Amino acid sequence: MAPQYAPSLRSRLAPLLCLLQTAFIVIYALYVELDQNVETSGTTFRIFYSEFQDVNVVVFLGFGFLSTFFVRYGFSGSGFNLLVAVIATQWAVILNGFESWYHRGKIRIDLKSLVVAEMYAASALISMGTVLGKTNPVHLVLITLLEVSGFALNGWLLQTFLKVRPLSSITLLHIFGAFFGLTLTWILYRKDSVQRFEKEKSDRKAGLFCILGTVFLWMFWPTFNSVLVDHHAPGRKLAAVYSTYLALAVSAVTAAAVSVLSNPKGKLNPGHMQRCTLAGGVAVGVSMSVIHQPWQAMTIGFAAAVISTLGFRYLKLHMLLAFECHDTCGVLSTHGLPGLLGWLAHLLLQLMDCDDHTTAIRFAVFHICTLLITLSLSLSMGIITGFLLKWNFWRPPQDKKCFDDQAFWEFPHLAVRK
Amino acid sequence: MAPQYAPSLRSRLAPLLCLLQTAFIVIYALYVELDQNVETSGTTFRIFYSEFQDVNVVVFLGFGFLSTFFVRYGFSGSGFNLLVAVIATQWAVILNGFESWYHRGKIRIDLKSLVVAEMYAASALISMGTVLGKTNPVHLVLITLLEVSGFALNGWLLQTFLKVRPLSSITLLHIFGAFFGLTLTWILYRKDSVQRFEKEKSDRKAGLFCILGTVFLWMFWPTFNSVLVDHHAPGRKLAAVYSTYLALAVSAVTAAAVSVLSNPKGKLNPGHMQRCTLAGGVAVGVSMSVIHQPWQAMTIGFAAAVISTLGFRYLKLHMLLAFECHDTCGVLSTHGLPGLLGWLAHLLLQLMDCDDHTTAIRFAVFHICTLLITLSLSLSMGIITGFLLKWNFWRPPQDKKCFDDQAFWEFPHLAVRK
Amino acid sequence: MAPQYAPSLRSRLAPLLCLLQTAFIVIYALYVELDQNVETSGTTFRIFYSEFQDVNVVVFLGFGFLSTFFVRYGFSGSGFNLLVAVIATQWAVILNGFESWYHRGKIRIDLKSLVVAEMYAASALISMGTVLGKTNPVHLVLITLLEVSGFALNGWLLQTFLKVRPLSSITLLHIFGAFFGLTLTWILYRKDSVQRFEKEKSDRKAGLFCILGTVFLWMFWPTFNSVLVDHHAPGRKLAAVYSTYLALAVSAVTAAAVSVLSNPKGKLNPGHMQRCTLAGGVAVGVSMSVIHQPWQAMTIGFAAAVISTLGFRYLKLHMLLAFECHDTCGVLSTHGLPGLLGWLAHLLLQLMDCDDHTTAIRFAVFHICTLLITLSLSLSMGIITGFLLKWNFWRPPQDKKCFDDQAFWEFPHLAVRK
Repeated sequence: MAPQYAPSLRSRLAPLLCLLQTAFIVIYALYVELDQNVETSGTTFRIFYSEFQDVNVVVFLGFGFLSTFFVRYGFSGSGFNLLVAVIATQWAVILNGFESWYHRGKIRIDLKSLVVAEMYAASALISMGTVLGKTNPVHLVLITLLEVSGFALNGWLLQTFLKVRPLSSITLLHIFGAFFGLTLTWILYRKDSVQRFEKEKSDRKAGLFCILGTVFLWMFWPTFNSVLVDHHAPGRKLAAVYSTYLALAVSAVTAAAVSVLSNPKGKLNPGHMQRCTLAGGVAVGVSMSVIHQPWQAMTIGFAAAVISTLGFRYLKLHMLLAFECHDTCGVLSTHGLPGLLGWLAHLLLQLMDCDDHTTAIRFAVFHICTLLITLSLSLSMGIITGFLLKWNFWRPPQDKKCFDDQAFWEFPHLAVRK
Repeated sequence: MAPQYAPSLRSRLAPLLCLLQTAFIVIYALYVELDQNVETSGTTFRIFYSEFQDVNVVVFLGFGFLSTFFVRYGFSGSGFNLLVAVIATQWAVILNGFESWYHRGKIRIDLKSLVVAEMYAASALISMGTVLGKTNPVHLVLITLLEVSGFALNGWLLQTFLKVRPLSSITLLHIFGAFFGLTLTWILYRKDSVQRFEKEKSDRKAGLFCILGTVFLWMFWPTFNSVLVDHHAPGRKLAAVYSTYLALAVSAVTAAAVSVLSNPKGKLNPGHMQRCTLAGGVAVGVSMSVIHQPWQAMTIGFAAAVISTLGFRYLKLHMLLAFECHDTCGVLSTHGLPGLLGWLAHLLLQLMDCDDHTTAIRFAVFHICTLLITLSLSLSMGIITGFLLKWNFWRPPQDKKCFDDQAFWEFPHLAVRK
Repeated sequence: MAPQYAPSLRSRLAPLLCLLQTAFIVIYALYVELDQNVETSGTTFRIFYSEFQDVNVVVFLGFGFLSTFFVRYGFSGSGFNLLVAVIATQWAVILNGFESWYHRGKIRIDLKSLVVAEMYAASALISMGTVLGKTNPVHLVLITLLEVSGFALNGWLLQTFLKVRPLSSITLLHIFGAFFGLTLTWILYRKDSVQRFEKEKSDRKAGLFCILGTVFLWMFWPTFNSVLVDHHAPGRKLAAVYSTYLALAVSAVTAAAVSVLSNPKGKLNPGHMQRCTLAGGVAVGVSMSVIHQPWQAMTIGFAAAVISTLGFRYLKLHMLLAFECHDTCGVLSTHGLPGLLGWLAHLLLQLMDCDDHTTAIRFAVFHICTLLITLSLSLSMGIITGFLLKWNFWRPPQDKKCFDDQAFWEFPHLAVRK
């Protein structure tokens, strides 16, 4: 018989976090310096700081509260999100500064490097969405470290072998994060839990917290997409903002329409409003560099919402039953499919812009190679991470304790009183 | 006997949304272009973007969560708010660009046009507050389209015949939205529901979500009021920010005082804290162009909070019983009366500034005409919209299904589990 | 026998608030003017406004929702926070402008003076955290007025006698607020309530609202710390932002580690995640002017989180049992101890920077005097306030009505329906 209580993480989580944090402090003490270049950073700072705050809101608040929709898993959804995000950010600063360290011996921290690091964190948080509820914080920390490393490796590969620009490799975060997470949850599938997890359910108030996260993501997604576009090209930055805004607006309407249309009783699905309204932002994020007209952004937003909503409605269950892949937050529909759609839209729009066949074919090959490298790396990293996490040493929660805060959190006042 | 389930909206809402969104995309494809003027917009962008985000927070988050205070109607309150706001914004961009389209053949989107469009959306959301819970999303979409059209028509009339400046006509959004909504709910009154709707009630947690909306509105109202004041007149912009801030601060204290004073047991009413604390911001919004001293803003905030709180306490029930006008969110007290007070304050302060009688009388006539046109247009548009919505073709929810998310939302996890 | 209902505040709270607000309006009418210096303030405004909004978010939203974690006390936690904050801000503007009034006859309001006033409000809100739930709004208003006056007096003393810079005296807000509050709650201790208050408990959803407040504080703390650093020294401002960010990141990881380590079952404590993750920001806020390296900020964040979490785990109960000091929100661990740690870090780092012994000793004496003055003033003001509040004239709630919204709020819809 399985034990009644969830296994204690005291001997696993505490040393892991302490060790990791101490290691980070030591590395930062030896190799990281604050940006001292006051003249340039003074100006940049004033321009950049409020966008940096917007990205903070997306990563720490938006993603965090988007994961609070389980009735008994709100503390874990929002709390572990914070934990994972700060670890990912600290780790990504180190990985991203590797080249600078190699050449100059020091890694420099400025607002831009923090924003890039938070993009990496966002990609780890997307992966986390697939396994949320079925893992413990130790798993999540390991996933974070490996996912961020994989994504950094992917960026390095793309930049070194295909001369992809850094910004373009970062926009692949949705695709990398989603397929890494899907592979992971496929490997971690628990055969014996054919019945769904009994605590995997939502209620009205938990759903409202989730909508709160959605609205914040929705509002600050234009900044999230445009923040890394060069400040010296204000036209491109503007276009990224407007495109994202329009695509999100269209997505919200379209997701509602498709949700009602695909339900026999003509009702809206809260999950669709919480996640599929964001599909346009994801798709535009991947393709924004080639969008020049409002209708292009709006059409991409329309298509992304249709795919995302239908995927959420039909594909999610199919993935579970046919492929034994339990995707907790519907990451495939929210980030995976819209990300691929954005990639496709990028390809088509770029081909339409090309004058001659040779350039078109060269771009197509280059663009397809980019996707293939990203997908194969995300799948292989997912497989490696999956097998590492299958090890029982990490003390996974029992099926009965999945989606339950009480496995990881003490409720002192409740316990004493009731 | 009435059917047990709420009527399905599949054949009404889905085609309406699809059609509307497709029409918007087609219109945008033909007539809308992104602002390409990089030189000027680069600079403006940096200054304007964070204010644009603040307005987003007011419209999408603030108004949305202000409507979540019903215990069973949180998804609808926040979800329909998003839906209505994005439709209103897209529609308002088209209506506002009509003149530019007429002259140049194209409508240009920039941050300012989006902010103006969101102001129109705010006016539609205010109207929505009167009928919330007693309507279905199809109604809300129709209300949005007609209210925004009416408000645009009002602006055009005022600007054409009275030479009112665009900014001044936009500040009338509270008055227009409130009286449009009140007429609407008066026409839609359900005689047979003399007993109040049984699900029209709040609870602690729903009230907290509402307070969350209040606090966001409270914090970002200074931006909401000042955002359209010309950047080349920083003094006026500053004055608008400080005035709104002070008026809101005074409102919060005064609303609490009046709430306690008007309750026999000396208790605070959550509704007063949620709505009447904002009255000062509304009143200053209408009158800010003539406020030069802190005490003027503070006195307006004080008076607005007194009127708003007393209106909420006594007038709301009176409106229901005597006029058969069921005002769900107390829009009359939150936006209508403080808006009128602001109009009056504007008149008085302007008259005090006038040196000679002729100018004073001319201004008074002009100012009264502005109000009369706005009121008559809002009332007539409200009547037209009301009669359109009375048509049973739109499938209104039964009395029993009012204020109930389950009429429009599926709860898959709950349904499966319980 | 004690009465069944909480005493009515109608004859206490309403006149107090009305009187106070009228007095503020009169004072503002006579002595306060808006900043008319358009040329300079235009530029400053654009730079400063979004930081001002961030501080608003910290004070009105962050602190407010951080106090919503009691299951029956959410309206009071967030509503009284707003009330206290606006009174404190209006009062602090007057107190801070005293010198300017003395010299020029007028107090000038600009964004900076409002930000400083909100810092004072933050210090009052910290004090409020110690007595929350055991006091009524009349108490809270009195505490606010006295705490803000005390903190202003402290600043004046430090600046006059020790030539401490204004910014440095403001950074002591955590220490002043915490020890003022602790003295207060020690004096107000109710001997007969040896059993803990029966309604002092949390639940999942209330905890999530609290985490929402935490995340907002966490995200906007870098602005809160850096906002008053001179804009003409962008390097120092940058350093303050980066230091706070890094310290907060380390705090989040460390608080989780220590929380798990100090629980026999290896579980996280929600209270630790809600409060101790912020300890690094507090400590850096006090010491930021001497932090030059990332590792310094990170080490301070690490130490602050360890102290804070251990203090929350062991010291809070000890304070209650041994010293009869009931610290509702754990202000000692969240603000007091990390504040003292920051003070110590400031001393040590400054001493390490000194070249000769004389300067070092002079600085140490100066720094210790600063702390001693602050502590003695906060303790004596706390004692005075405490004895004032012990007066039964203010109608404190009975033990049974503590931590219960129903003592101060009417629930009309609930009451009618159930």
